[in-house]
Amino acid sequence: MKTLIASLLGAAVLSASLTAQAQLDPEDQIKLRKAGYSFMAWNMGKIKAMAVDGTVEYDQQQILAAANTINAIAQSGMGALFGPGTDQDVGDQTTRVEPALFDNFPEVAELSRDLVAASNNLVEQAENGDQGDVRSAFAQVGRACSSCHDKYRKD
Amino acid sequence: MKTLIASLLGAAVLSASLTAQAQLDPEDQIKLRKAGYSFMAWNMGKIKAMAVDGTVEYDQQQILAAANTINAIAQSGMGALFGPGTDQDVGDQTTRVEPALFDNFPEVAELSRDLVAASNNLVEQAENGDQGDVRSAFAQVGRACSSCHDKYRKD
Repeated sequence: MKTLIASLLGAAVLSASLTAQAQLDPEDQIKLRKAGYSFMAWNMGKIKAMAVDGTVEYDQQQILAAANTINAIAQSGMGALFGPGTDQDVGDQTTRVEPALFDNFPEVAELSRDLVAASNNLVEQAENGDQGDVRSAFAQVGRACSSCHDKYRKD
Repeated sequence: MKTLIASLLGAAVLSASLTAQAQLDPEDQIKLRKAGYSFMAWNMGKIKAMAVDGTVEYDQQQILAAANTINAIAQSGMGALFGPGTDQDVGDQTTRVEPALFDNFPEVAELSRDLVAASNNLVEQAENGDQGDVRSAFAQVGRACSSCHDKYRKD
């Protein structure tokens, strides 16, 4: 385990953590938030392939595992990874964040809560297992992602 | 969402996925497995700070959120990210994986199951909330991490 990450003040939800004093340096914060979003995107891609595109055979356990991962990461306190100095590229880490995000934490927290709600529903539908319901819940999560990306992520 | 990740054949547990045909290229597989492990390590660090070192105030909801994240990632089918061609650096992605891992998938799957079991217990103890029990469960997860790192990760 890396000692550099040992002392972070995490928070369970973005709204509680946006103002938290992270003890990670800005470069590590950017690295870790990109890691979290990439890992969520990978799991979104798996659900899309199985439940939407049909390019991979539908497997309820794999859908549920992916949904649980998205849901857990969404609630992992990633707001702590948007600390001071992370509004631009730092060291080896590039970022596509729009600097405007840092002036609009209350709205970002609201968008984050939307993602948590949508991913809670995705887990519920994945547990129930109906493919149509999973597809709808997946689309809802996708809209939650996009609503933040459209405003606060550069192309 | 990135189209490159849309068609991956995921799997719920490492044992089921080590032989899966990933449709991601090797560079993306390495990037995503590093993302997953980094994100787990960040969450391990938060629990350590709160439950072991005491450098951050103990918060049961944050401990549980971190435990859920570790547990979900551990079960997200990361075996699919150790496909052919990922045993060495590819493109911009460096890897510390020991090539021997690719000759020992059954043992790696067993180590992965140990991690899942340990992180299941961590979630359970985080739900119960007793700090001593969380500390023990955290140590068990740490041992599961190390048992794989010692054999299959370069320093």
